[in-house]
Amino acid sequence: MKTACLIIIGNEVLSGRTQDANLAYLGDGLNGVGVRLAEARVIPDDSDVIVAAVNACRPAFDYVFTTGGIGPTHDDITSAAIAKAFNLPLVRYPKALAALEKYYKNNKQELNDQRLKMAEAPEGATLIGNPVSVAPGYRIENVYVMAGVPLVMRAMFDGMKHTLAGGKPMISRSILARLGEGMIAEGLGRIQLQHADVEIGSYPFFRDGKLGTSLVMRSTDPAAIDRAAEKINALVRSLGVEPVDEE
Amino acid sequence: MKTACLIIIGNEVLSGRTQDANLAYLGDGLNGVGVRLAEARVIPDDSDVIVAAVNACRPAFDYVFTTGGIGPTHDDITSAAIAKAFNLPLVRYPKALAALEKYYKNNKQELNDQRLKMAEAPEGATLIGNPVSVAPGYRIENVYVMAGVPLVMRAMFDGMKHTLAGGKPMISRSILARLGEGMIAEGLGRIQLQHADVEIGSYPFFRDGKLGTSLVMRSTDPAAIDRAAEKINALVRSLGVEPVDEE
Repeated sequence: MKTACLIIIGNEVLSGRTQDANLAYLGDGLNGVGVRLAEARVIPDDSDVIVAAVNACRPAFDYVFTTGGIGPTHDDITSAAIAKAFNLPLVRYPKALAALEKYYKNNKQELNDQRLKMAEAPEGATLIGNPVSVAPGYRIENVYVMAGVPLVMRAMFDGMKHTLAGGKPMISRSILARLGEGMIAEGLGRIQLQHADVEIGSYPFFRDGKLGTSLVMRSTDPAAIDRAAEKINALVRSLGVEPVDEE
Repeated sequence: MKTACLIIIGNEVLSGRTQDANLAYLGDGLNGVGVRLAEARVIPDDSDVIVAAVNACRPAFDYVFTTGGIGPTHDDITSAAIAKAFNLPLVRYPKALAALEKYYKNNKQELNDQRLKMAEAPEGATLIGNPVSVAPGYRIENVYVMAGVPLVMRAMFDGMKHTLAGGKPMISRSILARLGEGMIAEGLGRIQLQHADVEIGSYPFFRDGKLGTSLVMRSTDPAAIDRAAEKINALVRSLGVEPVDEE
């Protein structure tokens, strides 16, 4: 299976000011195209840190995605850092420039020098369209540079995810048991050993003042999930509780 | 300033099933004790990956926090991986055992072998109390191992954060401007250059169908923030918009 890494660039995420919403969207979207999000990193708006993270991740994963730092302000340093990581010049893309010119003209605003920065990307990049606010993302080799604003990031990803070469979609099924996970742990461990083709996760929760556990099966093979689910349902019933399909 | 790294351990976060809520809580809590969350990584339930991440991060940051993977089920492998990273045996802690015995007796449940796993930590660790569900976290050298369930993670962190040796608290102030950030970018960049003692971030948003920008100042020096804020307010007013203090 192809793997991916997400690099979330932004002081605001590390400081706790902004709750990231892009990781879960990307992870879920990659499941659908048969790519596994294998790691994510959240790093500050620091050029050296961005360069080091991008260069550590691009040989280690099939795909690297970045979010954040491609706007017009002084703290938007992602494109300069990506260019540095690849040792390529930043150049202005005529197609991006034309789109920005039209957008700001229509909005009766000035396309100033700061906004012009958004027409730049490292030499040799392929632009990624932005139907929300025009300023594009881009791909360079296996690195996909996207906006941090979730509405824009989602539009960029949805517009290009069909171009990713993945495997079979990863599917999941979840069974809810009104049991503490310690009750089910032994039997579940045994089922996992017997069903190595399914990744089984156990996630406890408190809800309505009661303990429960979500038992999540993931695989690219729906039949394998059904086989494991049958065993899990039987295990939960053997503990005197009726399992419930989630979602 | 002291730095910290958070390692979030869990397939469920990478798959998009679970939205992490611990990063923002930790980042915000660390601001209050003068420690900067400088990086976060999200990694899968994979022993080799956990060992590598922990051993890469513990010499690079003053503090390393982990969340997730310390429950009773087969996918809870964090403690075994931490022990491996430190090349230490996992041992049973009598104090943790006594707390678990009492808790399960009171709840009329069995303290089975799987639950006994939660009394284990690498040799030489200091336990971190868990007032929610008893099973402790622990510290070994500069690595703090905490639960993934947010309610439990928060209780663990709040109970021990006073033991962290940090610097002056990091404080922040945010000014909202009903302007696209491209309008303010040039002036803001100039203010950042003049106020190197304040970290200034610019975060665009769409709200009520209109563009706006949050201008966030962070520093350990309240007077420095006030000086930068005065300049930012004047800049926003010079663009014909009344700035609004956020929060």
